[in-house]
Amino acid sequence: MTKTRIERDSMGELQVPVDALYGAQTQRAVDNFPISGKPMPTQFIRALILAKAAAARANVELNQITAAQGKAISDAAQGLLEGDFMQHFPVDIFQTGSGTSSNMNANEVIATLASRLLDEPVNANDHVNCGQSSNDIIPTTIHVSAALALHEQLLPALLHLVQVIEHKAGQVHHHVKTGRTHLMDAMPVRMSQVLNGWAQQLKANIGHLQDLLPSLQSLAQGGTAVGTGINAHPEFAARFSRQLSQLTDVQFTQGKDLFALIGSQDTAVAVSGQLKAIAVSLMKIANDLRWMNSGPLAGLGEIELEALQPGSSIMPGKVNPVIPEATAMVAAQVIGNDSVITIAGQSGNFELNVMLPIIAQNLLSSIELLANSSRLLADKAIASFKVNESRLKEALSRNPILVTALNPIIGYQKAAEIAKQAYKEGRAVIDVALEHTDLSRSQLEELLNPEKLTAGGV
Amino acid sequence: MTKTRIERDSMGELQVPVDALYGAQTQRAVDNFPISGKPMPTQFIRALILAKAAAARANVELNQITAAQGKAISDAAQGLLEGDFMQHFPVDIFQTGSGTSSNMNANEVIATLASRLLDEPVNANDHVNCGQSSNDIIPTTIHVSAALALHEQLLPALLHLVQVIEHKAGQVHHHVKTGRTHLMDAMPVRMSQVLNGWAQQLKANIGHLQDLLPSLQSLAQGGTAVGTGINAHPEFAARFSRQLSQLTDVQFTQGKDLFALIGSQDTAVAVSGQLKAIAVSLMKIANDLRWMNSGPLAGLGEIELEALQPGSSIMPGKVNPVIPEATAMVAAQVIGNDSVITIAGQSGNFELNVMLPIIAQNLLSSIELLANSSRLLADKAIASFKVNESRLKEALSRNPILVTALNPIIGYQKAAEIAKQAYKEGRAVIDVALEHTDLSRSQLEELLNPEKLTAGGV
Amino acid sequence: MTKTRIERDSMGELQVPVDALYGAQTQRAVDNFPISGKPMPTQFIRALILAKAAAARANVELNQITAAQGKAISDAAQGLLEGDFMQHFPVDIFQTGSGTSSNMNANEVIATLASRLLDEPVNANDHVNCGQSSNDIIPTTIHVSAALALHEQLLPALLHLVQVIEHKAGQVHHHVKTGRTHLMDAMPVRMSQVLNGWAQQLKANIGHLQDLLPSLQSLAQGGTAVGTGINAHPEFAARFSRQLSQLTDVQFTQGKDLFALIGSQDTAVAVSGQLKAIAVSLMKIANDLRWMNSGPLAGLGEIELEALQPGSSIMPGKVNPVIPEATAMVAAQVIGNDSVITIAGQSGNFELNVMLPIIAQNLLSSIELLANSSRLLADKAIASFKVNESRLKEALSRNPILVTALNPIIGYQKAAEIAKQAYKEGRAVIDVALEHTDLSRSQLEELLNPEKLTAGGV
Amino acid sequence: MTKTRIERDSMGELQVPVDALYGAQTQRAVDNFPISGKPMPTQFIRALILAKAAAARANVELNQITAAQGKAISDAAQGLLEGDFMQHFPVDIFQTGSGTSSNMNANEVIATLASRLLDEPVNANDHVNCGQSSNDIIPTTIHVSAALALHEQLLPALLHLVQVIEHKAGQVHHHVKTGRTHLMDAMPVRMSQVLNGWAQQLKANIGHLQDLLPSLQSLAQGGTAVGTGINAHPEFAARFSRQLSQLTDVQFTQGKDLFALIGSQDTAVAVSGQLKAIAVSLMKIANDLRWMNSGPLAGLGEIELEALQPGSSIMPGKVNPVIPEATAMVAAQVIGNDSVITIAGQSGNFELNVMLPIIAQNLLSSIELLANSSRLLADKAIASFKVNESRLKEALSRNPILVTALNPIIGYQKAAEIAKQAYKEGRAVIDVALEHTDLSRSQLEELLNPEKLTAGGV
Repeated sequence: MTKTRIERDSMGELQVPVDALYGAQTQRAVDNFPISGKPMPTQFIRALILAKAAAARANVELNQITAAQGKAISDAAQGLLEGDFMQHFPVDIFQTGSGTSSNMNANEVIATLASRLLDEPVNANDHVNCGQSSNDIIPTTIHVSAALALHEQLLPALLHLVQVIEHKAGQVHHHVKTGRTHLMDAMPVRMSQVLNGWAQQLKANIGHLQDLLPSLQSLAQGGTAVGTGINAHPEFAARFSRQLSQLTDVQFTQGKDLFALIGSQDTAVAVSGQLKAIAVSLMKIANDLRWMNSGPLAGLGEIELEALQPGSSIMPGKVNPVIPEATAMVAAQVIGNDSVITIAGQSGNFELNVMLPIIAQNLLSSIELLANSSRLLADKAIASFKVNESRLKEALSRNPILVTALNPIIGYQKAAEIAKQAYKEGRAVIDVALEHTDLSRSQLEELLNPEKLTAGGV
Repeated sequence: MTKTRIERDSMGELQVPVDALYGAQTQRAVDNFPISGKPMPTQFIRALILAKAAAARANVELNQITAAQGKAISDAAQGLLEGDFMQHFPVDIFQTGSGTSSNMNANEVIATLASRLLDEPVNANDHVNCGQSSNDIIPTTIHVSAALALHEQLLPALLHLVQVIEHKAGQVHHHVKTGRTHLMDAMPVRMSQVLNGWAQQLKANIGHLQDLLPSLQSLAQGGTAVGTGINAHPEFAARFSRQLSQLTDVQFTQGKDLFALIGSQDTAVAVSGQLKAIAVSLMKIANDLRWMNSGPLAGLGEIELEALQPGSSIMPGKVNPVIPEATAMVAAQVIGNDSVITIAGQSGNFELNVMLPIIAQNLLSSIELLANSSRLLADKAIASFKVNESRLKEALSRNPILVTALNPIIGYQKAAEIAKQAYKEGRAVIDVALEHTDLSRSQLEELLNPEKLTAGGV
Repeated sequence: MTKTRIERDSMGELQVPVDALYGAQTQRAVDNFPISGKPMPTQFIRALILAKAAAARANVELNQITAAQGKAISDAAQGLLEGDFMQHFPVDIFQTGSGTSSNMNANEVIATLASRLLDEPVNANDHVNCGQSSNDIIPTTIHVSAALALHEQLLPALLHLVQVIEHKAGQVHHHVKTGRTHLMDAMPVRMSQVLNGWAQQLKANIGHLQDLLPSLQSLAQGGTAVGTGINAHPEFAARFSRQLSQLTDVQFTQGKDLFALIGSQDTAVAVSGQLKAIAVSLMKIANDLRWMNSGPLAGLGEIELEALQPGSSIMPGKVNPVIPEATAMVAAQVIGNDSVITIAGQSGNFELNVMLPIIAQNLLSSIELLANSSRLLADKAIASFKVNESRLKEALSRNPILVTALNPIIGYQKAAEIAKQAYKEGRAVIDVALEHTDLSRSQLEELLNPEKLTAGGV
Repeated sequence: MTKTRIERDSMGELQVPVDALYGAQTQRAVDNFPISGKPMPTQFIRALILAKAAAARANVELNQITAAQGKAISDAAQGLLEGDFMQHFPVDIFQTGSGTSSNMNANEVIATLASRLLDEPVNANDHVNCGQSSNDIIPTTIHVSAALALHEQLLPALLHLVQVIEHKAGQVHHHVKTGRTHLMDAMPVRMSQVLNGWAQQLKANIGHLQDLLPSLQSLAQGGTAVGTGINAHPEFAARFSRQLSQLTDVQFTQGKDLFALIGSQDTAVAVSGQLKAIAVSLMKIANDLRWMNSGPLAGLGEIELEALQPGSSIMPGKVNPVIPEATAMVAAQVIGNDSVITIAGQSGNFELNVMLPIIAQNLLSSIELLANSSRLLADKAIASFKVNESRLKEALSRNPILVTALNPIIGYQKAAEIAKQAYKEGRAVIDVALEHTDLSRSQLEELLNPEKLTAGGV
């Protein structure tokens, strides 16, 4: 049995583990919400602690708390971040919809530590939470934690993935393969064209994500309870953003309209929508890799992904495309996380959306999963696959669709007849074309050369 | 300019096209909701008209309207159904969330026709809508229209698809092909095993759908405005269900709890969830077909789907798997329709869900799309594909994974070594196994025979 | 029975209705795809016809077709657009995944009309489709139709909605009401703050949508079959974009990487994700309106929406918030449409995504629904609602949460005690505060004045 | 630095922590998949260990392993389950799509423990995995873990919730309140009718969930690598199911078609669809509770939920409906989890679905969240709320919609006039009706008595 001490809040007394840094309200939340058994994400708690430090500094500047109180709060916050802080944040993700329990958890833990540092009582509500409400600090923390995770994790990982793809494209430029539309043999493409297409998909997505950063770095802080800013100093929002920008090296700004930022979670919805778009791209890339790697004998067999682990507990020698599979599962999860955020976003009423904890959880999960899988996809799949040139050549040499190149000369209808005959008789298209057109073999060799066909143009 | 007449309702007068069978409330709705330009689904309107006929008969039995009024209403309804009735139902899908506008549309049209038949005024509210509220008749109509569409369209179409698959399985039983897990070559399977697996997927789904029919055939009728049944005769619900069952040959019953059936759309949500599960199965089957058909040369090339249309406006001779593609798109649409119904279902408050029109629209759309595409998939893809036996054989003969069959004799570790050497040296696994085991060639031929391996068992 | 004529394509002969402008391939598609009974969206067909006109002009410039052929094609296209063109485009949405059937439908119809104009045969493939493939023209048409619909419909409608909200905000600025967080009474807000919050939600969304326009106006055209541009003149893409920009007054550009634009539908996924974000905002606004309007007696009763139609077929005198309900249903549908586009986007393989028709259908549906409902929400709900000032006042006067304003003076703990006592004893908070603090009645009246509290700040 | 030992598998040697019970393949997976940082769910690992014990017993019966090996494996498995087994299962959720890494993790850990017990080597592949493949044991484990979680957690929790609701319904039967449709005042309902409606929603859902149990308890085991059962004894599937049923007290059966059960995850998709339907019901119930509890003064104020924690860090005395909020967030998460499972289900190809780990994770998460929140909703919200009778009475007394009860006597049109006048003049409907009808006050009092109106019927 855990030893406990008595704590009290505005609803009365209760038992708290004797060593806990947190107090009564955290304990009530622990008791009230035995639902998922999972705490709020580490990234979220870290951002919340940073926000508390920034708020303390802003409040000192504005004379809302003493310099000593502010320093104690700020030092307590910094100290927390240097250690294993998650042990002090036990509140379940599925809690009050405003995240008030997590806010009070932070207020209580920091108040305890600051009181020790200062040797006089620092109050969770009146000092640590000074000028704040859960209703502005939790939406703020969603934005801050997501922005930090994008800057620190996802954007660098995606850029790394682009770089690895483009580097690989250079290495495999000389490989020409059968293009596929509707999964059916189509005109040839260069392996580099395929990879550069992927890179461009990602670059467009990165651009769209970056377009959302100004909204994400625009904060609800200063709105307090309902957006009016009751009990916050009029300059608090601006000072807070400045302090937080200094603490994080990311440029945060005061939101244009705090009612919108507290009453809705539209920015999280928009960012999640774009994360879903990235997931869609990764699913496509992962599946292209899986299919190119399929076989080795009864599949397409165009490439060979690096072997990372035995593929089967029963089939010896089997090697599977495990990294693209993990990436595809990440994509599926991110699409589902976006569903959660959509449901949560559209559930808001009046002055506060009360599905904030699951918005935080799903948004940060999506960012982390995409970041980690993008790096793995780059380093353990794309960087290291080998091309099976002989398979590519063999398939290309027999492809009657190459006849497409003759359309401008002989017309679609006649070209179709040649292609069909070539398929039917299992002959090379060039031989059939020789019989049915006035073109010479050397002209046909020139016109039907797969390498040249990848350059396009009439 | 359309000529108009003056109509009035409880809110006052307005202009209605002079020839319109409908009256003021329909016209208000036409004016109020220029949103999608699309009317409620035909199946829905048909079920609503049937419900009006059933209600009239029940009301006559219970002396709520005269026999003459009841006959006029019932005859008017039947007459409507025999003609091109949709011209009289112009109200947009995106209307009042209760579907009251569609209910009043039906009341008004039938009242007009019934008045003509009877040669005395039949009132839309007091006679046609007697004992009913939009709040029970619209949920009832959702259940009735979906149940009819399942019985008349989807279930027969799925059963047909199962039958065609099982028949085809018999025809292709002798073909053995390389199984694929992770898209990688695995142990062999019979083509019939693949097809029977699909059939079983569908049969399980059909069973789950049938399990939901009793709930779907259980009706909200009799609850009127809020579930209490105010203004309906206490026996109305039972009489109505009996009459409707006679009119439709489907067994409908009075709901157990009318508050649940009016306040929620849980049955529609559950049915849609199961339609989504069917879509998931069809997506898998369609994709298996697409990949088996891929190539013909640079793909798997295991089967050849019937050629239905030229595949490309630019690549002559190309033929694409268009029916599986259409099926896959149907699957995607049904999954999205289920999202709509989920959002709608979870939006309900208190005594009435007010997203009824889009629940009706998306549910009926899913049923129709699945029914029509299942028939096409059966008749234009599965019934007629040809197997490319030479490709199957060629792939099987080289598959080192067959070594799996030796595990029980030589152990996984040694089997893995043999498989790897066979891959690396491009040799048949039997030749490598001969060198590395004590088994004779005839023993190995017996053990590694792909046909036998499909029977399984040690 | 329809009279028919014989037509032929590369697969042979078939019967086509004698008067049809389209030819064999359209007819094959009509026969192959009896699935939804619904044609491609009007906006899509319009954009496809425009693209054909632009292509003809570009091909003339590049000497790929004669000036006479080009003029005939361009004139035929323009002529089509001036009439009821949809009668000539019967191909079902659920067709081949590339939309080839719709492309050939356009090619055939325009070839027929151009041949009539020119009095010599204009070929559907060789002339109308010159330099094009379904694989570039259909993705191009998705971008073009969506861009036109955004510029012509959705963006103006959203801006109108913002304008109406901001205008209304000015009119209702003097109304102060009880703020609500967790649906519970919170600190007061001005009605104008609520409305301006909505306006800002929409303005942020408009900005995010506009950020995506450059990607959307960047076209796949010129990539032809697989992205390499086989059979298109190297300058075709640039000339096409210029011609199309002239025809539409929207600036279209040649895509940076045509492989990405043909192989994926990432831009459509991103745009749909943002449309979903707009739907989420509209759902929130619609629900706020519905709840503010609820009652009139047993609900919140803060506003009275314009009465547009009788609300019930059974409850006389009932008036319902039908426009916000229709808007909420639009939001639900757009969220589901986004699911479809997500599934479709992530289904792509290799050089072509083959779920193009449903991407087009769902994207254009979302744009149209949002545009039409935004205008209705503006004009028939927000512009015309009345504020029930007496209800607002009554609720405000009794709200103990106003005690929050005393926190900075008396601390959170003491304030909580006052609020609880006021609730419990049903007394005004000012009276309880007078007993428990040193503040005078005039000080308290100043501090607890709801109007002042909406200005926020310490 | 962790001390390590050298381990080897079919791919070679690598370093494993010296104390780890697991071996090379687990270590490879740990190294390969640093993605989410989260292991497979405890429920899943528990079911996997149980399946290993059942397999060992079946293999002994069929003489595939020795009795001593079987006992050692079975004892090792049982021993694991009695301790903190999750420390030995570090493999990330986002791993190979077949879950092979988790299967080998179990094989290796159990082999290590069994070898210690037996004092001779027990091989992970040849003995622990005997007659199994990841391709059957992982789908089996998904079914088994979900079935156990439904039987042990969710079904009892839902039944408890139903019981609590029905008990409460009995307690609040005498309270009559204003019904609401479209959020607008409608005819009166009893509080018990509302609650019994919720109970019936849940009971229907429970029934639908139970209908799926036979499918869920039908197992893929025996299919091994691709469904053919290669390397498993022909009686293995039946013996395994029997042993597992004994170990778990749940009746498991051999699947009808093992190809369907390995190649698809249709049952998981169907079960998840029904969990989503339950989530939809809970969302509705949670929101009804939140709105009934809203206020206390500026909201509906019909009930008062138990106060569980201070509601605001800034607004003293505020109490929020935290349990319904947590429930609503659970509902949103379960809807999103279903999206993941849908995407995963429709991603399958050929003989194996390779999104198994996320299917397991999301399915088990949904079950656990629904179970835990259902109990909380029952015990901390529904069991303990108080009814605010005075508010209910006050609202009822003024509700002009009661005039509906006069429809059968005076007709809808006249009733509408009376209601409108009553609203407009703010008078009781009975007084207006007295002026406009021939009914006496006592007749009207009888007809308009809210209590009687809840019984319904003409």
